[in-house]
Amino acid sequence: MRTIDWQDGHIVAIDQTRLPTELAVLHIDTVEDLIDAIRRLAIRGAPALGVAGALGVVLAGGDRELSERLQAARPTAVNLAWGVQRVLARPDDLLAEALCVLEDDVTANRALSRRGADWVLDRVGPPVDVQTHCNAGALACVEWGTALGVVRALHERGTLGHVYVDETRPLLQGSRLTTWELAQLGIPHTLVADSAGPSVIARGLVNVVVVGADRIAANGDVVNKIGTYPLALAAQRAGIPFVVAAPESTIDPATPTGADVPIEIRDGAELTHIASWPIAPEQTQALNFAFDVTPADLVSVIITEQRTLHRTTALQADSP
Amino acid sequence: MRTIDWQDGHIVAIDQTRLPTELAVLHIDTVEDLIDAIRRLAIRGAPALGVAGALGVVLAGGDRELSERLQAARPTAVNLAWGVQRVLARPDDLLAEALCVLEDDVTANRALSRRGADWVLDRVGPPVDVQTHCNAGALACVEWGTALGVVRALHERGTLGHVYVDETRPLLQGSRLTTWELAQLGIPHTLVADSAGPSVIARGLVNVVVVGADRIAANGDVVNKIGTYPLALAAQRAGIPFVVAAPESTIDPATPTGADVPIEIRDGAELTHIASWPIAPEQTQALNFAFDVTPADLVSVIITEQRTLHRTTALQADSP
Repeated sequence: MRTIDWQDGHIVAIDQTRLPTELAVLHIDTVEDLIDAIRRLAIRGAPALGVAGALGVVLAGGDRELSERLQAARPTAVNLAWGVQRVLARPDDLLAEALCVLEDDVTANRALSRRGADWVLDRVGPPVDVQTHCNAGALACVEWGTALGVVRALHERGTLGHVYVDETRPLLQGSRLTTWELAQLGIPHTLVADSAGPSVIARGLVNVVVVGADRIAANGDVVNKIGTYPLALAAQRAGIPFVVAAPESTIDPATPTGADVPIEIRDGAELTHIASWPIAPEQTQALNFAFDVTPADLVSVIITEQRTLHRTTALQADSP
Repeated sequence: MRTIDWQDGHIVAIDQTRLPTELAVLHIDTVEDLIDAIRRLAIRGAPALGVAGALGVVLAGGDRELSERLQAARPTAVNLAWGVQRVLARPDDLLAEALCVLEDDVTANRALSRRGADWVLDRVGPPVDVQTHCNAGALACVEWGTALGVVRALHERGTLGHVYVDETRPLLQGSRLTTWELAQLGIPHTLVADSAGPSVIARGLVNVVVVGADRIAANGDVVNKIGTYPLALAAQRAGIPFVVAAPESTIDPATPTGADVPIEIRDGAELTHIASWPIAPEQTQALNFAFDVTPADLVSVIITEQRTLHRTTALQADSP
């Protein structure tokens, strides 16, 4: 099934908080419920948030105030706002435009995955051994995936070696979701602590890092799940490519640099507690950044469905 | 109370697996029980392991085979072997030598903490805002601490600002132990995910990184808890000092480089499960490096109780 879809007048989506132990499906027919699902990360992933924004405007009947509340549910990923605005701009046929956003995501994923696999295979492997972070797979999109889409394209071509997955604290999108997708696909993979990702790179266990993005600033700075930046530092030191795979909708020309992106700070309890069990003293406060900024000079390439953008002072395509 | 001590013919030690919810004390009178306590990290921290090795030889009555089994309980920290060998070399008076190792640790901690605070204050702050990792505090030693000892010395002088603590997955020595020590001392601190440490540095929230070490190779490479290396990469990029505080016994002239240090790989279940609750699919294997290697060129200074060792091609003192 698709991660998020439109069926019989409402949104159906996989509840990502229940994986890997249970594949549960949400049926959402109000904007309030959609906002709740987004806030608690039942629906997550930049491309999927774009689709959720688009379909949410249909649930809102095109109501601007309600749509803008939806748009603010998570501040960092630009795709959510992009999906909302794209459908709001077509009040004559909200549903058709929303379904177009949905189908475009599938097409874009496939295109950027092919392009990404081509780029990687021009430079490393086979076998290509990949370090990835968080989940930029089918579960972050409608289907197929972005960073993990590149991995799947490499796998289809018989050029993939092994995939190392960071667990992605505190909400474990790596250990719960990415490993689940890789296991379903029969792709050999190994889970490591987030703090071990840079060592996996330094020890030569991988020859490329591939991640997604939640927002790409005009200068090429990449905002992605907290823990992406240390992988970029380690990749630079090891001299291996650091590849960002994301749809065009993730690029935000209105945001000059990564420093201008609002970084979501989530509840500290995600760090101080596991379920309701305390793992830190009562007096201890936690600072829970959801995202970090990888400066453009550490990014080897940004791959979208349309362009291959190499490291320069501004985003500039080197191939169509 | 002391973290580890000798009372009435046996070892008493704080059970570090029970903190921060419970301050439980272990009474250990056999080498078997000591090995078990070390393997499950009830007793941990390089300096404390040195003392455990020393006192363990007393429990073994100087038996060489038993002592060597103890020495092998954890392979990375050189201090354990150092403590065992130091007492084995004095068969005439095992206990006196072991107690000497114990008292020396206290003295060494105080001396290196003063030296470390002096070095830091020559370069940054006040206020000095510190990023640290894992636990190199009183709980890693007999009392007082190494990296956290430097923090305490800065606090005593009224020059400390804020301390950021990485949680230190998978066993959470940062969120369970370091925060507990800082809370007891009334030192302002904030817990962050391991993956967020490099962002704390990049955002300018701290002006120095201070960590301990489990082994320092002859070329100055530092082996410490997994997650240390990314902080060193981030400190270099941000241009802030990366300080290693450890007793002389941590320096191993017999090990040429970090690549020659055996890195303990612990049970993957520490990553795939929380308590007995699975957080990854059944098919997923985990690779659980307990330590990483920070190359010497990323280390600004190594502070011991005797020397201040600056970054050079080999370990070389620049002051007595």
